[in-house]
Amino acid sequence: MAIDAKTASERLEKQIDFLLEIDKLKTILRRTYLLHADRSENTAEHSWHLALTAMILSEYANEPINVAHVIKMVLIHDIVEIDAGDTYLYDAAGALDKAERERAAADRLFGLLPPDQGKEFRALWDEFEAKQTIESRFASALDRFIPQLHNYHTQGRSWKEHGITADRVLDRNACIADGSCTLWEWAEALLNDAVDKGFLRR
Amino acid sequence: MAIDAKTASERLEKQIDFLLEIDKLKTILRRTYLLHADRSENTAEHSWHLALTAMILSEYANEPINVAHVIKMVLIHDIVEIDAGDTYLYDAAGALDKAERERAAADRLFGLLPPDQGKEFRALWDEFEAKQTIESRFASALDRFIPQLHNYHTQGRSWKEHGITADRVLDRNACIADGSCTLWEWAEALLNDAVDKGFLRR
Repeated sequence: MAIDAKTASERLEKQIDFLLEIDKLKTILRRTYLLHADRSENTAEHSWHLALTAMILSEYANEPINVAHVIKMVLIHDIVEIDAGDTYLYDAAGALDKAERERAAADRLFGLLPPDQGKEFRALWDEFEAKQTIESRFASALDRFIPQLHNYHTQGRSWKEHGITADRVLDRNACIADGSCTLWEWAEALLNDAVDKGFLRR
Repeated sequence: MAIDAKTASERLEKQIDFLLEIDKLKTILRRTYLLHADRSENTAEHSWHLALTAMILSEYANEPINVAHVIKMVLIHDIVEIDAGDTYLYDAAGALDKAERERAAADRLFGLLPPDQGKEFRALWDEFEAKQTIESRFASALDRFIPQLHNYHTQGRSWKEHGITADRVLDRNACIADGSCTLWEWAEALLNDAVDKGFLRR
């Protein structure tokens, strides 16, 4: 009985240690700017926004999806950035060792959890990365879709800062259609309008 | 057909307008301090943290719960703060008109969504506020539990700043036990230790 209580308490301690550790995600900055404040977005608040997006836009997935599963996936999809940092979508050099850096981060971070939960979280993250399931393709589509909105509604601030051109935006985001043709159609119209308005260079 | 496409597009436009509007939650500051940076926590990143907490600590609910439902509830529970602001747990004056301010905010904000989704979100928020279901009591327990961790691990920074004493913390947080006796037991031990260490005044 004493051993059981001790084991139970050790389990909760590990879980709480993980929750304290992931507070760091609130300090990881992305290239995206907020719409209503003059600062970069951090990855924790981005993950919250994506989860809400999944709740609201799930009807536009190309196939019927398990929304709760998408929500869980987007909530944890960027936790690896605590160790690996945020790799900008248009950073070709960073992309070279991104997978390796993020795998090491996943090993360490999900390894903080009790083994059963660590395995569950790792499976969710692996699924997101592999983009083989309809849920992961939709989650990934949202992850690309939302920054287009942020860029458009800040007059292309992040695109301009990094000298990103329309062809690169189209090239890196066309995969939105793999998760949702409707959202890609919307994004394409937005990007064309961004070019017309001078937010995005041809 | 033309009318259908127009209606569909208007629906998506409303949904996206809501997603743009709730970006403001990233600018609403709470009294809690981050663990790994010298700044206050905002409500969007707090909501993300709570959703993760629900995923990880669901086994400690007093009764078996629908975890996905808890996750959705905590993701939206504080959206009303966009209009109503964050009311500090120990702010007796603010508490007087909190319910009224937040109801008006819920009317406006969830009213931005298409009616079916607005109703769904409002029902989730009403459920959270009423604390009559096991899911809402557990969600509420997590919402009280996590700030204890933040306070403890910042040496009682927010408690000290606002002159909060141990009896008030115990009084305002004992309801954690309504959702999870295990988590309340843990929190009580943490609070006793906080008093012993001088993080929290008697």
